[in-house]
Amino acid sequence: MKKLINDPQSVVDESVEGFGLAHADLVTVHADPKYVLRTDAPVAGKVALVSGGGSGHEPLHAGFVGLGMLDAAVPGAVFTSPTPDQIIPATTAVDSGAGVIHIVKNYTGDVLNFETAAEMAQAEGVHVRTVLVNDDVAVEDSLYTAGRRGVGGTVLVEKIAGAAAERGDDLETVLAVAERVNRNVRSMGVALSACTVPHAGAPSFDLADDEIEIGIGIHGEPGRHRIAMENADGITDRLLQPVLEDLRVDSGEKVLLFVNGMGGTPQSELYIVFRRAAQILNDRGITVQRSLVGNFVTSLEMQGCSISVLRLDDEFTELWDAPVHTAALRWGI
Amino acid sequence: MKKLINDPQSVVDESVEGFGLAHADLVTVHADPKYVLRTDAPVAGKVALVSGGGSGHEPLHAGFVGLGMLDAAVPGAVFTSPTPDQIIPATTAVDSGAGVIHIVKNYTGDVLNFETAAEMAQAEGVHVRTVLVNDDVAVEDSLYTAGRRGVGGTVLVEKIAGAAAERGDDLETVLAVAERVNRNVRSMGVALSACTVPHAGAPSFDLADDEIEIGIGIHGEPGRHRIAMENADGITDRLLQPVLEDLRVDSGEKVLLFVNGMGGTPQSELYIVFRRAAQILNDRGITVQRSLVGNFVTSLEMQGCSISVLRLDDEFTELWDAPVHTAALRWGI
Repeated sequence: MKKLINDPQSVVDESVEGFGLAHADLVTVHADPKYVLRTDAPVAGKVALVSGGGSGHEPLHAGFVGLGMLDAAVPGAVFTSPTPDQIIPATTAVDSGAGVIHIVKNYTGDVLNFETAAEMAQAEGVHVRTVLVNDDVAVEDSLYTAGRRGVGGTVLVEKIAGAAAERGDDLETVLAVAERVNRNVRSMGVALSACTVPHAGAPSFDLADDEIEIGIGIHGEPGRHRIAMENADGITDRLLQPVLEDLRVDSGEKVLLFVNGMGGTPQSELYIVFRRAAQILNDRGITVQRSLVGNFVTSLEMQGCSISVLRLDDEFTELWDAPVHTAALRWGI
Repeated sequence: MKKLINDPQSVVDESVEGFGLAHADLVTVHADPKYVLRTDAPVAGKVALVSGGGSGHEPLHAGFVGLGMLDAAVPGAVFTSPTPDQIIPATTAVDSGAGVIHIVKNYTGDVLNFETAAEMAQAEGVHVRTVLVNDDVAVEDSLYTAGRRGVGGTVLVEKIAGAAAERGDDLETVLAVAERVNRNVRSMGVALSACTVPHAGAPSFDLADDEIEIGIGIHGEPGRHRIAMENADGITDRLLQPVLEDLRVDSGEKVLLFVNGMGGTPQSELYIVFRRAAQILNDRGITVQRSLVGNFVTSLEMQGCSISVLRLDDEFTELWDAPVHTAALRWGI
């Protein structure tokens, strides 16, 4: 295992500390228990958004803390849910009285810990509502979930719901927007190589030199099937087809097309995938009105990508275009 | 070789095409000869900036085309200079009459081809000036250069000179700004793993499981020395020390600290490197006034990073903060 780390046990501590040093204008890092806050939290009168999950998916979630997106992010150990003792103080710290929404990727550990934290925060007088993100069409149940996993769509939920909160929507309205994004986004991924969790020290699974895993999870958990290596267009077809079928997007509709890198794949390859996906959508009469290409929900240094498609309406497009100022997404400001 | 590509020969064509589809609001792609233009080029009265080089370093350079940065980017084959027949039409296309600056990384092929193109464009009546970027302190001469190589500092030259052009500076003034950035920035990189050029099909060099290359070039060309794997703090010290010595930055000065990923390294690790580098600068009484962390000048899927330090003055900081709207860097707009 060759990694730019010191002690495998201190990876998250040191990485989050470095993140705080690099983006001191945007975030305040609380070291123990660990969470990352917008510097201006709590924002008076604003519904606050809190997300979190295992580390190793950076820039998710701390990279999305800032104006127009999250008020707090709660990083767990690598590929491990954060604990209630982190989530609770993050939740109370960002609450201005307008309430807090937990954006939770659907993994059993995350669901349980955010649920516990929500109950405790409620007991302290914070109105907490939760949106579960479960956009991965690859598998119905998985190694770590009952039901579908939350993957790339999480970024889109955080951006669009974040914009709704920033414009002053109340708790139930922001929740409804977040749930509506989740209902209208679908994703699927592929792995060309495994990744190595630092404290494990060895690759989390094996893929032969001529093998890829279709429908991979963001922790390297199994997907739909392993197949022989194919070219980019073939792989893109295999990812996009189930996404479009499940989303039932029709000719004449508008979408946001998101090609997400798993961490170890060059950007040039992501654009080759984007090209094919855009061609398919175009051939079906579906308009790619917005796009996002890059490493946003990663699995350490895994090679591969995921494709997400979000059905757009005028409100989603307006909220997508609204100003955002975070470490990983920024525009209009 | 597992890559998200179709034909190794069409990687650049398809990737640039996908880039154009994803960012049609920002760029126009000219397919043959291949170059990427700002959609609104030529911008009346503005000095134009053209850069380019081998592909495989994405987002460099096409990812920096747009308001406040480049007017055109000219992508060559992977790790191969673009040819004059690409550079000439890109240069004439962006010239509004105010002249064009070629931003050229110091590699023999790039220098020759941009020189030829500049002469030809001059013959067509375009005022062309050239800035050579040579910020890499690792080696004095290298496999592909006479003199130092141009690496991470290129992004900073493009951003700051781009802002000078956007505010209306004339040709000689923009050139002077670009040269001044180059004189005040130094970089050095490390590789933990090699990368594979698609049409070569095999890794460009071998590194043992316990070995890293200090002072690596962005094409995998040799650096200063191979050493046994060290921890992130030790590696950071080895990169930053020569950078600071060469730059002769003193206590009380302000810098921009740029930790650049080589493509295959997780963002979490880049922040561990940033943390240590920021600590060292802080200990020396040097203020990290601006920061940049991410994959900006890559070597395909190589694992590793580079550290660049730019000495800031008020003008540089103002130009750095000026609005920019490109695929890879965006703020203020």
